[in-house]
Amino acid sequence: MTQQATRLVIVTEKVLTKAVAAIIESYDASGYTLIAAGGMGSHNTRSSGEPSVLDHFGNIKIEVITADPDSAKKIADAVSERYAADYACIIYIDPVEVLYSHRL
Amino acid sequence: MTQQATRLVIVTEKVLTKAVAAIIESYDASGYTLIAAGGMGSHNTRSSGEPSVLDHFGNIKIEVITADPDSAKKIADAVSERYAADYACIIYIDPVEVLYSHRL
Amino acid sequence: MTQQATRLVIVTEKVLTKAVAAIIESYDASGYTLIAAGGMGSHNTRSSGEPSVLDHFGNIKIEVITADPDSAKKIADAVSERYAADYACIIYIDPVEVLYSHRL
Repeated sequence: MTQQATRLVIVTEKVLTKAVAAIIESYDASGYTLIAAGGMGSHNTRSSGEPSVLDHFGNIKIEVITADPDSAKKIADAVSERYAADYACIIYIDPVEVLYSHRL
Repeated sequence: MTQQATRLVIVTEKVLTKAVAAIIESYDASGYTLIAAGGMGSHNTRSSGEPSVLDHFGNIKIEVITADPDSAKKIADAVSERYAADYACIIYIDPVEVLYSHRL
Repeated sequence: MTQQATRLVIVTEKVLTKAVAAIIESYDASGYTLIAAGGMGSHNTRSSGEPSVLDHFGNIKIEVITADPDSAKKIADAVSERYAADYACIIYIDPVEVLYSHRL
């Protein structure tokens, strides 16, 4: 069942988990994986230029494997348009080869 | 020590952690990384079509970096043949470039 | 805002988290993501050849997304030169396509 697919990764604030999950489900993706994450990003750096306090595990990494690169981009657009101005957020895609899945 | 390698990723139910680790070790992979994960997948969606309850962190993401793409595929085959009918499971591979490793 | 970028991944022991974060910040990367991890690696296998005890979540996976592949390699070199002799460590890179980021 080898199949080329797109891995969509969204790293954002944990408080957005349900909102982003709802967007993913609205684009008919068959599933997603949630991973607790921490980190430091430019969005969180104070305007003084001092490094921000390390926020341990207040973020979430959300991964979607989809056979449709367009739906990955639509999910990314919807998330960034609604939330990126107000929340830390990075979104990227990466081609992968799926060896097994119940359904893509 | 740059070296082309294959990243094998198995996302499945946490209860299978030891079983999948034993399969990986039997194929002589030099190591693996375990990450707690949650998520929603087609396997978990109820037949009514209603969205499943979000299962926070009942899953595991297992990553293996190997110089041998064949062993990645053999591990994937062994895991999916034994467990995929009964457990949520997605398996994919992704080429990576290893910059440092004690041993691949 | 689509942009080719490099995903740098460092999996090492949790005790090195602050040291590796300081190296990443010194190379002007705009951020990183931290994920708690466990696993088994060749470095941890006892010299008797017996499998090591599974160390649940004593490791950390650190991810950096950067537009500059050279800075990814410099961070990898700095981390491996200072810590790889004494700590479990694997470092790899993977090209990704960034769909949204505040700043790369």
